Amino acid sequence: MITDKMRKIYEDSGADVLLIETDFLRKYLTGFSSTDGYVVLDGKYCMLVVDARYFEAAKKALRASRVHVVEGSYRKALELIGERKRLGVPFAHITLSCAESLRQSGFELVDCTSALRTAMLIKSEEEIAGIAKACEIAEDAFNLLLPEIKEGMTETEVAAVLEYVMRTLGASGVSFDTICAFGENASVPHHETGRRKLKFGDPVLIDFGCKYNGYCSDITRTFLFGDDGQHEEFKKIHAMVLMAHELVKERVKAGMTGREADGIARKYLASKGLGDAFTHSLGHGVGLRIHEAPTLSPRSDEILADGMVFSDEPGVYVEGKYGIRIEDTVMMQGGRVRTFMSKTSRQALIL
Amino acid sequence: MITDKMRKIYEDSGADVLLIETDFLRKYLTGFSSTDGYVVLDGKYCMLVVDARYFEAAKKALRASRVHVVEGSYRKALELIGERKRLGVPFAHITLSCAESLRQSGFELVDCTSALRTAMLIKSEEEIAGIAKACEIAEDAFNLLLPEIKEGMTETEVAAVLEYVMRTLGASGVSFDTICAFGENASVPHHETGRRKLKFGDPVLIDFGCKYNGYCSDITRTFLFGDDGQHEEFKKIHAMVLMAHELVKERVKAGMTGREADGIARKYLASKGLGDAFTHSLGHGVGLRIHEAPTLSPRSDEILADGMVFSDEPGVYVEGKYGIRIEDTVMMQGGRVRTFMSKTSRQALIL
Repeated sequence: MITDKMRKIYEDSGADVLLIETDFLRKYLTGFSSTDGYVVLDGKYCMLVVDARYFEAAKKALRASRVHVVEGSYRKALELIGERKRLGVPFAHITLSCAESLRQSGFELVDCTSALRTAMLIKSEEEIAGIAKACEIAEDAFNLLLPEIKEGMTETEVAAVLEYVMRTLGASGVSFDTICAFGENASVPHHETGRRKLKFGDPVLIDFGCKYNGYCSDITRTFLFGDDGQHEEFKKIHAMVLMAHELVKERVKAGMTGREADGIARKYLASKGLGDAFTHSLGHGVGLRIHEAPTLSPRSDEILADGMVFSDEPGVYVEGKYGIRIEDTVMMQGGRVRTFMSKTSRQALIL
Repeated sequence: MITDKMRKIYEDSGADVLLIETDFLRKYLTGFSSTDGYVVLDGKYCMLVVDARYFEAAKKALRASRVHVVEGSYRKALELIGERKRLGVPFAHITLSCAESLRQSGFELVDCTSALRTAMLIKSEEEIAGIAKACEIAEDAFNLLLPEIKEGMTETEVAAVLEYVMRTLGASGVSFDTICAFGENASVPHHETGRRKLKFGDPVLIDFGCKYNGYCSDITRTFLFGDDGQHEEFKKIHAMVLMAHELVKERVKAGMTGREADGIARKYLASKGLGDAFTHSLGHGVGLRIHEAPTLSPRSDEILADGMVFSDEPGVYVEGKYGIRIEDTVMMQGGRVRTFMSKTSRQALIL
């Protein structure tokens, strides 16, 4: 009655039965999105417990799936668990309050974080289709945005147009708060989009993404708004960041660690004297969440493998001057890196 | 060196020092938003530990505040805690993994959820200003949206226009996924906005909100797109839901419980034979999160008091036919309910 994926998670956990409350894990296990609910999973059944607000919608959405929809709340989930005592919960996502309450009810808690994490690292075809569509919408929106960018617009106005276009192209929303930074604002890697107005010659950094069927995209492009002749250094550094970005796509292979992947970009930038200016990690996994496993950083031992989806985003920042980041969402396929981004330019475009 | 609010939270917790990792709690304690970081709070200092990505922005934003910004990560936060052993963490927000790791490091964990919750229930003037602005943007956007709604538009298109307008009016984003439901789709309280096209005579339900300086707004309006003469029952029920909504504003007073407040709307609707059709709670607290304390439901013992902000949202649903919900974000002030929503009509408008 359950899928192989569900069975593997259940078996890997070593628990009698799993109880999952976390939103994105419920979505992962059932395919259904809701703000509340419980999944009860054992070797035979995957049951989604949702209240009256979601019951009809869940029944309809999951008619053809392996998930049984049950109306109720916490008490109903406990009923379904019955007398079983070794309860699998994700220690990395369940709150301490929840855990203490379950322990007081007599459950022995078993950590299923790793079972879920291992399953979720390797994306299914359906998941990849969701991510690919989210990437396509983001790229199409970027291309539609470019001719709309005019001198005097604020960062927020540019972000608003981009988000609107993504929404009209079918995105359910943004995958994170859009970062739109003009000029020196781009030197803050997580700049808060604001009221700075666009001037001729400004560098522009836009880091954005959307959600489609729950799945995220993540992309960054950095370019110039007109050429004022003052940005020769910017163009030179931009070419180096782009080279670091492309080297990752060329040289990262399945079997490498996250550290080795990060090192490809980091060593190249260091060889150009930009080691200290690359102040963050190379990348992070992308899926139902904008930041998930694997991590591509100097401290990551994770082995990259086919079916993993992650960002390739080297960046160079000079405080108060500029910031340049070039990012694609990519996947590992056939042992090599394949990008989801084929429609937008990565060059230091001059609008 | 710390504010009275910080000192009270610290003292109420009973801990030697507090360690806060949760995003919205960091924002609450420091006023600074970031995706990662730690707050270390004791009776003298409030320290925000953020990494290189946020360090410059945090220093700049918090220059005039009581918060010390420190560059670093988890290790740095532990250094600041030093030899102190009774560590205050919010059990309702910290993950079990985090808790176990801290316990293994020798800390005795003390729950500061209640100290934080008590403080956060009563909004400061600055918080109320944020919520009021988020409400104003939502209402202005709704009024700007109405003349743009045309036959043949999809639910998603209407939501996209609304979100775009909120963004251009200064919102940083939506406070939750916009629910836009046409016709029978509104009978699902948490309908997923989709491709249903608007037809003459359709009832329209829009439940939406935005964020401003981190604070949320929440509003629902239900109206008719043209009068096809087939919606006499809708109009009758709409008037009853509106009456339930207004009775709450009139009769709910400081000192009542969440249950009593909920009961005012519920009893009225029950007296009209609609008790079973009001399938959810009357309301929820609104602040940095779209759902927080207090809860206004048949099971809530919380005492409503001045400075609390919550939603007043009775709703009536008839499966496959229609759903009607009317919602304002309101606050308790001078012992009475005062709405943040003064600009939009609550009537069964006919566009």
